[in-house]
Amino acid sequence: MTVAGLLDALASSEPTPGGGTAAAIAGAMGTSLLVMVTGLAKSRNNTDDEKAALARAREALLPMSGRLSTLADRDAESFNAVMAAYRQPKATDDEKAARSKAIQAALAGATTVPLDTLRACAEVLAQAPAVAQHGNRAAASDARVAVGLLRAAAAGAHANVAINLEGIKDEAFKTATAADAARLSSAADRDASAALQALD
Amino acid sequence: MTVAGLLDALASSEPTPGGGTAAAIAGAMGTSLLVMVTGLAKSRNNTDDEKAALARAREALLPMSGRLSTLADRDAESFNAVMAAYRQPKATDDEKAARSKAIQAALAGATTVPLDTLRACAEVLAQAPAVAQHGNRAAASDARVAVGLLRAAAAGAHANVAINLEGIKDEAFKTATAADAARLSSAADRDASAALQALD
Repeated sequence: MTVAGLLDALASSEPTPGGGTAAAIAGAMGTSLLVMVTGLAKSRNNTDDEKAALARAREALLPMSGRLSTLADRDAESFNAVMAAYRQPKATDDEKAARSKAIQAALAGATTVPLDTLRACAEVLAQAPAVAQHGNRAAASDARVAVGLLRAAAAGAHANVAINLEGIKDEAFKTATAADAARLSSAADRDASAALQALD
Repeated sequence: MTVAGLLDALASSEPTPGGGTAAAIAGAMGTSLLVMVTGLAKSRNNTDDEKAALARAREALLPMSGRLSTLADRDAESFNAVMAAYRQPKATDDEKAARSKAIQAALAGATTVPLDTLRACAEVLAQAPAVAQHGNRAAASDARVAVGLLRAAAAGAHANVAINLEGIKDEAFKTATAADAARLSSAADRDASAALQALD
């Protein structure tokens, strides 16, 4: 999909793609910017230790932009599945039961995708303090933009987890997922703050 | 450009596109999501006043996603111009003077583009409280993602204004631009907070 096509699709009143997709793409852009910083010829002080730390961060970061892109697509698919479940027939008791089961399964999927987006953003942000500390100062504003986008992506993914959890009846799943999301958000915020501090 | 191509270009160690482009695209995605909310058949309470307020916001928002996309391209171009100026010959005094003048002109351009991005994000965020207040509650998480992306885009654009201002020698331009950026950032933060409060 082209960038212009994505922007048009987000703006259309069709239900997908929506915020979950936009959050994942923002996270992927932030990841790509961090990858860029780890690939510059010069590190902050040009020491071997610093270059080794950036190489380790780069290795961890390289698969993550693609993973977030995939999650952007899966977010739209999972929400389409929720709407398809709601459209199932509900004339008989059997149909009602089957529809309710399908809705619950689809909502669980639509919760798991943004949770995975949040997890991916948290994993990327775990590398951000090292990138901020050791990366070339000439790219400091790129690193700052990256961290801001990843923090916004994580918060956006968390909002999508929360809204889809509202419709889920399985209390154990709700509690476990909400706790997982809260833990990942805290870690993401902590790492984002540490990275921004290293850029000041 | 495709989304995958943009992500690859951001990740490459080529100097452009960089954080300024990523910030503008994030702002464009946030704008598109707000446009989507204003285009839904139902508003929050389905009153005529509410629909009129959303229609006014929609009209203000419609051109802004395209403007931010254009600024994303112009950000890369303006930074390429800075690098081209630095590569000008500097063997003679005349060449040195011409190069210095070219660098200053290019840096002013590379400052004005993210300032325009920041201004566009602030203009979009000025519509966000109305969208948050009157938009369909079913799209609350989309509006929340939009505001988060626009806030991150504004902060990222501000970081790019600041880093390019550092190299500029015209003190009057520096002071005026820094003041303009600070004012726009404050307005953006205030409107983002108001919108998020209306979504709670």
